[in-house]
Amino acid sequence: MNVSARIVDGTEISRAIRAEVAAEVAQLRAAGVVPGLAVVLVGADGASEVYVRSKARACREAGMHDRTLHLPAEVTAEELYGVIDGLNADPDIHGILLQLPLPAHLNPKPFLERIDAAKDVDGFHPLNVGRAFIGDPRGFVPATPAGIMEMIRREQIPTQGRHAVIVGRSLIVSKPLMSLLMAPGPNAGVTLVHRHTPDIAPFTRMADILIVAVGKPGLVTADMVKPGAAVFDVGITRVPDPADPRGYRVVGDVDHAGVSEVAGAITPVPGGVGPMTIAMLLRNTVEAARRDAARTRKRDRRRAAP
Amino acid sequence: MNVSARIVDGTEISRAIRAEVAAEVAQLRAAGVVPGLAVVLVGADGASEVYVRSKARACREAGMHDRTLHLPAEVTAEELYGVIDGLNADPDIHGILLQLPLPAHLNPKPFLERIDAAKDVDGFHPLNVGRAFIGDPRGFVPATPAGIMEMIRREQIPTQGRHAVIVGRSLIVSKPLMSLLMAPGPNAGVTLVHRHTPDIAPFTRMADILIVAVGKPGLVTADMVKPGAAVFDVGITRVPDPADPRGYRVVGDVDHAGVSEVAGAITPVPGGVGPMTIAMLLRNTVEAARRDAARTRKRDRRRAAP
Repeated sequence: MNVSARIVDGTEISRAIRAEVAAEVAQLRAAGVVPGLAVVLVGADGASEVYVRSKARACREAGMHDRTLHLPAEVTAEELYGVIDGLNADPDIHGILLQLPLPAHLNPKPFLERIDAAKDVDGFHPLNVGRAFIGDPRGFVPATPAGIMEMIRREQIPTQGRHAVIVGRSLIVSKPLMSLLMAPGPNAGVTLVHRHTPDIAPFTRMADILIVAVGKPGLVTADMVKPGAAVFDVGITRVPDPADPRGYRVVGDVDHAGVSEVAGAITPVPGGVGPMTIAMLLRNTVEAARRDAARTRKRDRRRAAP
Repeated sequence: MNVSARIVDGTEISRAIRAEVAAEVAQLRAAGVVPGLAVVLVGADGASEVYVRSKARACREAGMHDRTLHLPAEVTAEELYGVIDGLNADPDIHGILLQLPLPAHLNPKPFLERIDAAKDVDGFHPLNVGRAFIGDPRGFVPATPAGIMEMIRREQIPTQGRHAVIVGRSLIVSKPLMSLLMAPGPNAGVTLVHRHTPDIAPFTRMADILIVAVGKPGLVTADMVKPGAAVFDVGITRVPDPADPRGYRVVGDVDHAGVSEVAGAITPVPGGVGPMTIAMLLRNTVEAARRDAARTRKRDRRRAAP
């Protein structure tokens, strides 16, 4: 057998979503609303700065308003609360994103909770986490799991009665995914295994849909994958590579070459799940702007009523 | 092989927890705080009324204050909001429980969200759902999954690196359990399967801990259980039984006699998971009272400061 898996091209899918977002932004602008995203970056972190710049560029390309607030690493908790309160009150800002990690002296939890849940387009506020868990559509789903669900839908990967296996138990990716995949609609069964599972292979081999989000290159090899499975590789690890001008290349958790010969579909790294996250973040921000506009209209109608 | 599983006696465990709760209540009373639980019951529903009476009795036995508000089935949304607002503002009430189901004309969601999250001892408010999901200890965990985790702890059933399989996907039982079992601490792997899973047996046979919460008598038979597994039967179904003076008896989802010969431990129905729920509800209410007392002390100290 020497089948080759279909490559799920995240760059292409995210481009399509960003074009749809741009069309929705144009509609909102025509109605006088410019969706705005604020990104709060504390201190200097190379990877975060690159990521924040990509977000800002993607916003502008979609016709959205963006604002980046770069605060010094030694910012106090009171100052950071003040910045968040200001953005919460700012009618031009519909989405607020606190770039993580924060400097070590700041625990992110109270700041994430300070963000107005209606502007929490990252979906990290416990109220949104709870709503997403319950299946309440007012909750914002974090960008990475939302992006994977969107890839599954657009690639028409069947989920009904199939079994999904998630490796890793992160709060931002794995746990929301579990909840989304088993929900009415997708109706998949789910398994989640992690570092404390002595042997993950008996589980990964049961997966019709396999999602690996650990950060360990080469963790999943061909013998651990069910023939025909759809494999989503969420891992992003820099490995030294003297042949690359940057001195490193980025790899996932899946042995891509080997698994491609067994799987039915597979996401590459880079160019798979990664590009989806910014697209989904833009979509959440447009959705926040749309809801805000609807609330404003309702309020205005109420005021105008005799 | 004719081993017989250890019976996990929920009645006995819940009695021990209620005694612990009573001791904590006595301490709080000595400090001038009487933990109070309010139960709001709308309309007449036989099963709900029985359950509400048991809760009230359990409160009194533990030395707590209880209040049952029985509203007519034709109560309006505004009236019900008013009742909840009153309880939210009442300093004698630390826990508020809206007994479900509500009459058909009332959607429970906005009422559950109206309850002050600090008094939501049922753990149904999305903020508490989110906190429990994140592992934030301020969230209240719903009584049934909390009760099962407590049985696992007290019976010293190993979870670290073991695999738990949950059958059924209810929001109140299965999904929170999944989250609790995989969390740091228990560190179990988890699988959740449900009505859309074509064949659950290959999954249930992998379970070191098997939790069945569906409501289908006889769903799980001995051949579907791994030898030595701990089996928690959450199902409660009334089946006609002319030999019983009530004309029915209550059974679980597990073929108890058959599975007892394979499993290492098993909960009976009745007398297994059921009795744990009221005990955990009392514990959540005492916890709410304790937090409220701590907040009051803090506020008083701040006022007393020069």
